Amino acid sequence: MKNSFGHIFRLTTFGESHGEALGGIIDGMPAGIDVDMDFVQRQVDRRRPGQSRLVTARNEADQVEVLSGVFEGRTTGQPIGFVVRNQNQHSNDYENLRNLFRPSHADFTYWQKYGIRDHRGGGRSSARETVSRVVAGAFAMLALRQLGISIQAYTQQVGNIALPGTYEDYDLSLTETNDVRCPDAPTAEKMAELITQVKAEGDTIGGIVACVVKGCPTGLGEPAFGKLQAELARAMLSINAAKGFDYGMGFEGVTQRGSEQNDPFIMDEDGEIATLTNHSGGIQGGISNGQDIYFRVAFKPVATLLREQRTVTIEGEPTTLTARGRHDACVLPRAVPIVEAMTAITLIDNYLLNKTTRL
Amino acid sequence: MKNSFGHIFRLTTFGESHGEALGGIIDGMPAGIDVDMDFVQRQVDRRRPGQSRLVTARNEADQVEVLSGVFEGRTTGQPIGFVVRNQNQHSNDYENLRNLFRPSHADFTYWQKYGIRDHRGGGRSSARETVSRVVAGAFAMLALRQLGISIQAYTQQVGNIALPGTYEDYDLSLTETNDVRCPDAPTAEKMAELITQVKAEGDTIGGIVACVVKGCPTGLGEPAFGKLQAELARAMLSINAAKGFDYGMGFEGVTQRGSEQNDPFIMDEDGEIATLTNHSGGIQGGISNGQDIYFRVAFKPVATLLREQRTVTIEGEPTTLTARGRHDACVLPRAVPIVEAMTAITLIDNYLLNKTTRL
Amino acid sequence: MKNSFGHIFRLTTFGESHGEALGGIIDGMPAGIDVDMDFVQRQVDRRRPGQSRLVTARNEADQVEVLSGVFEGRTTGQPIGFVVRNQNQHSNDYENLRNLFRPSHADFTYWQKYGIRDHRGGGRSSARETVSRVVAGAFAMLALRQLGISIQAYTQQVGNIALPGTYEDYDLSLTETNDVRCPDAPTAEKMAELITQVKAEGDTIGGIVACVVKGCPTGLGEPAFGKLQAELARAMLSINAAKGFDYGMGFEGVTQRGSEQNDPFIMDEDGEIATLTNHSGGIQGGISNGQDIYFRVAFKPVATLLREQRTVTIEGEPTTLTARGRHDACVLPRAVPIVEAMTAITLIDNYLLNKTTRL
Amino acid sequence: MKNSFGHIFRLTTFGESHGEALGGIIDGMPAGIDVDMDFVQRQVDRRRPGQSRLVTARNEADQVEVLSGVFEGRTTGQPIGFVVRNQNQHSNDYENLRNLFRPSHADFTYWQKYGIRDHRGGGRSSARETVSRVVAGAFAMLALRQLGISIQAYTQQVGNIALPGTYEDYDLSLTETNDVRCPDAPTAEKMAELITQVKAEGDTIGGIVACVVKGCPTGLGEPAFGKLQAELARAMLSINAAKGFDYGMGFEGVTQRGSEQNDPFIMDEDGEIATLTNHSGGIQGGISNGQDIYFRVAFKPVATLLREQRTVTIEGEPTTLTARGRHDACVLPRAVPIVEAMTAITLIDNYLLNKTTRL
Repeated sequence: MKNSFGHIFRLTTFGESHGEALGGIIDGMPAGIDVDMDFVQRQVDRRRPGQSRLVTARNEADQVEVLSGVFEGRTTGQPIGFVVRNQNQHSNDYENLRNLFRPSHADFTYWQKYGIRDHRGGGRSSARETVSRVVAGAFAMLALRQLGISIQAYTQQVGNIALPGTYEDYDLSLTETNDVRCPDAPTAEKMAELITQVKAEGDTIGGIVACVVKGCPTGLGEPAFGKLQAELARAMLSINAAKGFDYGMGFEGVTQRGSEQNDPFIMDEDGEIATLTNHSGGIQGGISNGQDIYFRVAFKPVATLLREQRTVTIEGEPTTLTARGRHDACVLPRAVPIVEAMTAITLIDNYLLNKTTRL
Repeated sequence: MKNSFGHIFRLTTFGESHGEALGGIIDGMPAGIDVDMDFVQRQVDRRRPGQSRLVTARNEADQVEVLSGVFEGRTTGQPIGFVVRNQNQHSNDYENLRNLFRPSHADFTYWQKYGIRDHRGGGRSSARETVSRVVAGAFAMLALRQLGISIQAYTQQVGNIALPGTYEDYDLSLTETNDVRCPDAPTAEKMAELITQVKAEGDTIGGIVACVVKGCPTGLGEPAFGKLQAELARAMLSINAAKGFDYGMGFEGVTQRGSEQNDPFIMDEDGEIATLTNHSGGIQGGISNGQDIYFRVAFKPVATLLREQRTVTIEGEPTTLTARGRHDACVLPRAVPIVEAMTAITLIDNYLLNKTTRL
Repeated sequence: MKNSFGHIFRLTTFGESHGEALGGIIDGMPAGIDVDMDFVQRQVDRRRPGQSRLVTARNEADQVEVLSGVFEGRTTGQPIGFVVRNQNQHSNDYENLRNLFRPSHADFTYWQKYGIRDHRGGGRSSARETVSRVVAGAFAMLALRQLGISIQAYTQQVGNIALPGTYEDYDLSLTETNDVRCPDAPTAEKMAELITQVKAEGDTIGGIVACVVKGCPTGLGEPAFGKLQAELARAMLSINAAKGFDYGMGFEGVTQRGSEQNDPFIMDEDGEIATLTNHSGGIQGGISNGQDIYFRVAFKPVATLLREQRTVTIEGEPTTLTARGRHDACVLPRAVPIVEAMTAITLIDNYLLNKTTRL
Repeated sequence: MKNSFGHIFRLTTFGESHGEALGGIIDGMPAGIDVDMDFVQRQVDRRRPGQSRLVTARNEADQVEVLSGVFEGRTTGQPIGFVVRNQNQHSNDYENLRNLFRPSHADFTYWQKYGIRDHRGGGRSSARETVSRVVAGAFAMLALRQLGISIQAYTQQVGNIALPGTYEDYDLSLTETNDVRCPDAPTAEKMAELITQVKAEGDTIGGIVACVVKGCPTGLGEPAFGKLQAELARAMLSINAAKGFDYGMGFEGVTQRGSEQNDPFIMDEDGEIATLTNHSGGIQGGISNGQDIYFRVAFKPVATLLREQRTVTIEGEPTTLTARGRHDACVLPRAVPIVEAMTAITLIDNYLLNKTTRL
């Protein structure tokens, strides 16, 4: 259970940053879905390091190889095994990390928990693990597309540069037109400048990804512990460097009165029951209500700094560390496809689960 | 799986707001723990409606009856079944709700998902379900106590009245000394005034609960999808009215540089490896690092208003609704023990799971 | 997970033989099913002790009380909590068992595993736990009935008295016409005589229950580890005193050639693909094929004897034990409804799971 | 959940008979175990086709490649991903099977359930999937070895040639000295002759594998639904061609009296509580009692025959089928390591789970 996510559509991943390969198994992929491998690879490429001047210069091909579960171009309902081979490894870059703990990384906690760790690039704790999530998310999207459900995440904030409006104020289709994945070009430019500046200082910066789901039918999510927002929260907080999640009015809404935040029910132009506003973020009582789902994910600044930091060795000796090599100064641009992938997995899983509600 | 939480220490709950009883089964309670039923009942009483002028006037006894799993005062390792009978039900108060959807409640989504709903007090979607969580949380605390782990949540913000400092600036043991459960008396007083005022207006208000865990050993949490923060996030977002979760520096930390937020490792006075600061909130790489765990949970204003709201009937006819009866104007004071309970369940579950890491 | 069964339709049980109550929670019951509580109670009565001269004389009412999940006569899709209060307890009968281990019971293993045990009537290890299974099985049957799936188990063998033919040689509707639940009256009479004789000797005897499922659609069961026969095997071997399971030709078929045991495909009279024979027992490749499902469950002789046995105390002192009180000399008649209940739970669970196979 | 087995030590597999590769992920492997890859490969070689004249002549290398979870020769506690590439595929041999259903195979049921199937060699339904189980079983054995737990399965019966005694009558270490994996040389010779004769007739034959576990501590297994025998039964019935499971006295014991079958407790020569006999098969009340665990698994004759059989096409046209190619006439010899592997997985999983019984 430790490395799996999902109940029906269930992803299990394996792999370390500098091991032979990463990969996973998608169990519960619905049968009969057309598989567009170009789409899958494109999603992985969006997460790939080295895709722009803003992200790490490692240029890893990250070629997805599907080993099972697809027959003559369609899913068979059998588990989809896939691997992404590691290439371009500079494992010796990490030899100096064997005996010390990088601040705010998982080095110390892995050492305490397991008594052994693969120190090369963080091993299993590296965000490189998320490549498998993007593969699985792409398969989930292939199914969601057939249901008319679409997902768009974007960079809403980098450091103190934030998009001023809500998601409805922007054309989200412009998200991919710039390197920071922010749908507003002027804001994107400022974000890029900040990242460049921070990087030049050998430092890093955090930010916020927002995500919007359109076309989600009513009924997804299980009351009590399986509330849709609870599943999404778990999905998002399982992403490396994620520090927070909220949906609908979220943290900002705590200062509101109920009379402001409540969403009155109305009949919409199609004669369907809808809400006048959508402060609920598309989820009520843990179940999707047919409105847009929207939520935010906070990311901390990357822990690896190209400047000196204090730390201790595994023997407890004080020392210092200055990272070398190629590292992101800001994860936000690359976090966007990861947030989308985890959203897709959560939604298709809850869609399938919802099919069991009635005979 | 829909109404269960936890992997090893696993709570499953049942019950509706106006049904016969609520209750649950705790599966995986460790054997041999002394059971202090007074403590369990006290926790339930902390969540109880009617305990102060600030919360709903319903005065339900909420008597916990344990049916199994305890023998001669100690847990046996067998499942603990328990029930809390509903009393003092005014089910007829709800007859007017049978055919309409209360705004920002689960009425509409349950109707869509199940085709049938118990309209009395929200049925299963009522926050009354959390009484079972508090019972299970109390059992979890009995085990955590033996491990030296303690949990203290408190009301950090109501509307725009917020505690200005961090948890370290207050004596958290004072939390229970006032009705809003805020450890700072002057702030508590302002919060109470705001709630009283909002209530007088027939309105409601949101807020933030903060939670601090002390004495947690290293090693709790599973990398990848079972990160401790992901488990906590799921736990918290499964609570009624919760809208957001963050831990450590959380959303506020997104404007920080890595050089500010990173926690340098040092040797502490006991010769143990520790961190100089604790911006990580006690969790690194998804695993507890031995420092204090702290996180926040945002709650929306209560959806039930004692003033008129627009809505539609199940036939889609526009109508209005003015709630009657006894309702909280602010959930924060009663959310505190619920947050603590879900934290306790998450921690004991991960503690037990961590025992399987090595032979 | 320890006290739960099923993936989607998931039963969790609690309760000890001499505790306050037994009961459980059914999570995942489909919404909108008419609830016939008389039927549910009748199933429980079939399992009840004291119903005939062949079974234990304890006359427990075993009244089922449903606490949630049913509203105005129909299931709501919410968890069904239920309890069966213990009555007529002669706990003092068991005081002599506090400090010794009954042979071939769970006394020793519980002691070893938990360090504590409820010695009264075996506590949690008592077959009394199965009353909760029968309740849940009855709810499962309410759903299966709507799907045209019916289940009939019967006593096929007691000691060396066995029904000579296959299930197709008997009118299974006659099963309930005698106390041993054997559809062939002359054989039933011999079985009853054997049980009476064994009982008079203070001894006990084993036997075999057979079970037949009619009307099961194709597609139930998941390949690899979730094969339908694997799920049934787990279900059956989780019943107290069960020692074996086989399906189709089972153990007897190991001496056959493939050319004898294979089931040729044919077109049946309705123009549907069917099998000429059904040696497969209705399951091929782990998935139901639309033919009758049939399987057998072996039960050992009851471990409690009204004659002297050797054993040791918890301090390891040799001693002897002669049981007193009211005990079954043969579990077979009462095992029949339990086998049916576990079959029903397994089938509805796999039916619901199968709904997730395609979008 | 569909392709996973185990709770803590959890294997998920993927792969089809004629796809790119088979493989799996072991989640929950304890950290710090020395990895002997020669041992792992040897276990896989024991399952391999083509190893003797009695089994199919396909000579597949079945080279195990471990992709993660092992660092500098020891397990890290992270998931172990592994693949076994398919080689030597004669996929065109199967083109004639694209449009018809092989009797007593999974062809028809897969078609019904998924609407699509990989017809080449049975695709996912092929027993080739078990290669992944043997890999995972070998890792489980590496851990069990440290605990002093050993597992030995052997061929007890082929057709009507059965070992006359119990497992205690033979030197099980001789099992690997002959091709049928029967510890008694004269019986092995008769079994081999029968298999050879059946094969010459283009037919197949079933049999029984017995399995013995020595050194198992007390306490493994969870009461109610997770009884150790229930877990083993599920494990065994999930193996292709398995038709039955029993343990201890099993089906043969149903004719016994309780006074014969009960195992009196005694003090053994080491001053430990033990049982005088072991008719219980090492499990009482669902929990291991420290005695040898023993059980049997029935296997049907292989469904693929080198002789003509009746069947229908997917359009429902009657036709005949005569298999070509290389097929086992009897699975028993190759089933032995698979039974051992599933036993090992079940035991290590329950060992780890049992660690959570007490704080």
